[in-house]
Amino acid sequence: MRVLGVDPGTVSMGYGLIEENGQQLRMLDCGVLSAPTRKPPPERLYELYLGLLDILADSQPQEIAIEEPFVAQNIRSALAIGRAQAVAMLAATNKGIPIYTYPPAKVKQMVTNYGGSSKGQVQHMVCLQLGLAQSSPPSDATDALAIALCHLRERQLATVLARGNRQP
Amino acid sequence: MRVLGVDPGTVSMGYGLIEENGQQLRMLDCGVLSAPTRKPPPERLYELYLGLLDILADSQPQEIAIEEPFVAQNIRSALAIGRAQAVAMLAATNKGIPIYTYPPAKVKQMVTNYGGSSKGQVQHMVCLQLGLAQSSPPSDATDALAIALCHLRERQLATVLARGNRQP
Repeated sequence: MRVLGVDPGTVSMGYGLIEENGQQLRMLDCGVLSAPTRKPPPERLYELYLGLLDILADSQPQEIAIEEPFVAQNIRSALAIGRAQAVAMLAATNKGIPIYTYPPAKVKQMVTNYGGSSKGQVQHMVCLQLGLAQSSPPSDATDALAIALCHLRERQLATVLARGNRQP
Repeated sequence: MRVLGVDPGTVSMGYGLIEENGQQLRMLDCGVLSAPTRKPPPERLYELYLGLLDILADSQPQEIAIEEPFVAQNIRSALAIGRAQAVAMLAATNKGIPIYTYPPAKVKQMVTNYGGSSKGQVQHMVCLQLGLAQSSPPSDATDALAIALCHLRERQLATVLARGNRQP
């Protein structure tokens, strides 16, 4: 199972690809797509959209996990988050890849066992669980890896629960 | 000059095409793209995106005007508006068409001379200015026509001002 996590932003968009093989998790790729802030917003969005389509074509994930906050600092930032989410959703749907969304607190809960963790704690736990040198990937990329990790943990949990329900 | 106005929504998206020929304004097409609410949000967005690409290919507007509110009822609706805006922006950028955005109060001001007009007043004035039978198009479509009208009025104003500045 290969999952791409996406942390959507209108200036930069983190992505992280994780492969699960039995109990083994391996980071295959991660990085940050960015679009120059001097360009008008529609062009930036389209650049991120094309960049994400390229990543999906190269990395061939079976599923995509996207961060989807239900809260925002203010209306302006909520509009921007909504735009960035749409870019990720359109790119995944264009490639026919199933999409799963998770709010930030759920991602933190699944990755660090505490929904109120700091960014640094999430980064630390992502690197630990994937065997990466601490603080090597940029934080938008580790955020995206955290979202992919969250989705894989959620899948594992669902599998365990399904097995439990099948027992007499 | 042919302008497409777009009133972006995540369930339905109004569009309206107006041609300006000298002082003459003519409505060429208008309607509402809609995506079934039973479908998941990403699929709905993608359906609206493809629908809008078709309309742009058929109607060949030179410019696009999109409504861009700066306020929303709450964070959840701001996220949805942001997603719908992104759909319109990506479709227009995909076709290389310049985008202009206007807040709702500006659209009302330009179309009815009053920024606090009701939906009904906007609809009435749009139909009057374009010679349409009252309330014939659905309200999302007249909203989109209002946005296109607003953009054309703004262009006319800019032309008049530029002429004035050139006079000795």
